[in-house]
Amino acid sequence: MLSEFSLIDRFFARRATAGPSDATAGTLGIGDDCALLAPRAGEMLAISTDMLVEGRHFFADIDPEALGHKALAVNLSDLAAMGARPQAFTLAFSLPKADEAWLAAFSEGLFALAERHDCALIGGDTTGGPLNLCITVFGSVPPHAALRRDAAQPGDDIWISGTLGDARAGLGIQRGEWSADASDAATFRRALERPEPRIALGIALRGVARAALDVSDGLAGDLLHILERSALRATVDVDAVPRSAALRRLAPDIQRRCTLAGGDDYELCFTAPAAARAAVEAAGRAVDVPVTRIGTISALQAPHDRPAIAWRDAAGAPLTLTLQGFDHFHAD
Amino acid sequence: MLSEFSLIDRFFARRATAGPSDATAGTLGIGDDCALLAPRAGEMLAISTDMLVEGRHFFADIDPEALGHKALAVNLSDLAAMGARPQAFTLAFSLPKADEAWLAAFSEGLFALAERHDCALIGGDTTGGPLNLCITVFGSVPPHAALRRDAAQPGDDIWISGTLGDARAGLGIQRGEWSADASDAATFRRALERPEPRIALGIALRGVARAALDVSDGLAGDLLHILERSALRATVDVDAVPRSAALRRLAPDIQRRCTLAGGDDYELCFTAPAAARAAVEAAGRAVDVPVTRIGTISALQAPHDRPAIAWRDAAGAPLTLTLQGFDHFHAD
Repeated sequence: MLSEFSLIDRFFARRATAGPSDATAGTLGIGDDCALLAPRAGEMLAISTDMLVEGRHFFADIDPEALGHKALAVNLSDLAAMGARPQAFTLAFSLPKADEAWLAAFSEGLFALAERHDCALIGGDTTGGPLNLCITVFGSVPPHAALRRDAAQPGDDIWISGTLGDARAGLGIQRGEWSADASDAATFRRALERPEPRIALGIALRGVARAALDVSDGLAGDLLHILERSALRATVDVDAVPRSAALRRLAPDIQRRCTLAGGDDYELCFTAPAAARAAVEAAGRAVDVPVTRIGTISALQAPHDRPAIAWRDAAGAPLTLTLQGFDHFHAD
Repeated sequence: MLSEFSLIDRFFARRATAGPSDATAGTLGIGDDCALLAPRAGEMLAISTDMLVEGRHFFADIDPEALGHKALAVNLSDLAAMGARPQAFTLAFSLPKADEAWLAAFSEGLFALAERHDCALIGGDTTGGPLNLCITVFGSVPPHAALRRDAAQPGDDIWISGTLGDARAGLGIQRGEWSADASDAATFRRALERPEPRIALGIALRGVARAALDVSDGLAGDLLHILERSALRATVDVDAVPRSAALRRLAPDIQRRCTLAGGDDYELCFTAPAAARAAVEAAGRAVDVPVTRIGTISALQAPHDRPAIAWRDAAGAPLTLTLQGFDHFHAD
């Protein structure tokens, strides 16, 4: 197997050595025991790691070029949610055999996204085994500008970038749960396979937004992470949650299920003071990403009050929503 | 599966929050999109990642506490080889089911080693899937003190820490290739399951050694990495390669096979100028790790001369050694 995996090493090392256009001086990449990396002067490294497993995060027949894109995109999305600028990543993976065409396509998807974000491959590991991808990304962020989950304040607006629900709609079509015309189905599939990490928006929101995270497991569960870390409550207007034109052509209950408990969106959910509304909208315009206000943050009401989301419709009428796990979301 | 994996998150997050005794100010650990980490003032982060797969790097019946130890130890060994001081690590793993007893033992082995080295768990990912462990470690090292593979010079001595071959001897006993008495077998097994990363030695060798790496795939192959990166040759006295008393009780050809092409040693192989012999020995004494001089580095002899190792016995007579892959090493 050694020669096979030497082949893989060379395959990835080839583009790893190109490095980012603004490479940190002194960075030592692939070929030594460790890579050496420093954050930009006065900044800290933001670090995130994600593991993707065949059969759980993707199917065996996935387009390997899309897989290469998505494996890095979901990691970059964590940097975006921190307001960090991508700098480098490591890639460790196991795969059953060294299929050169598969690796060529996978690395193409991976490096195309990496190079767009000046994010250099600085280390890795390859081995035989069931298909498994583990990426660790490194970004740079000024310590006090980092968009943390615990930084929301009562009175903050809640914002969403882009639209939610298309990826879940695409998964539903793959699973045969619902259908759409070919054009909408292609939109959904693209959202599922080709998420675009909101890097530029995250950086534009430094000093503007307070708390942020990326929506990867569905808005209902993810917003709760901000509330729990910040010890606060939220009120969300369900009808204000931004949806694509394609999603609006599905049935209303499917729209809600996809936007609120969908997952795989990789949009930013963030809070900002009401006084910063114009600044948030300017940040969105500057990076050409729509931003939509969907609700407000409020304080816990009593000593034993718990972080929770109160759902409202456009008329302000309360909705009771029951979540029974990741994919089991029903409006009463 | 969500509740299962919440259980795992809590299991590991519990000890992750303890943090290292010299935690970097401003470090943000588990619970946000990213961890935030800075190297010590004026230093760089040394970063290494390793993936361990069941059936390839360990057997399904391995003691999970030993696995926890070894998964981190092999990563810390890369920091040692760079002269870096451990600071933090991320852990991503997939496993078929959340077995609480298994996880308790695994995390015990992992954190016992991590805490001995003040190395904090700062992030991670858990998912279902075939058993796979991916650890990324972060250490801190002054930029010009890093022990790089490309820094060897003609005339340097070649040194080895500790002894080589015991782990391979243990694997041979597991495989039924040879046998040993119970006491020696226990010594070999311990070397295989419980490697001790040479962190203190790596730090003590800053400014003393030139090039270094850790011996993970066998001395013959690993020393060649230094030679290739430094564009140099080496002469090694096979009989000088340090062996444990237990290994010396195996047949001479097995001793050579285990010491030169064994693997899983996690000792440091490093070069240093001849003028630094006393300093190298003092570094070894200071951290209580034996260091043994086994050969010398020399320049390439002709324009087309290639990096290679010339093997000699104690009398200086040349030996021709043939390597046919990782585990196929034969003295002519």
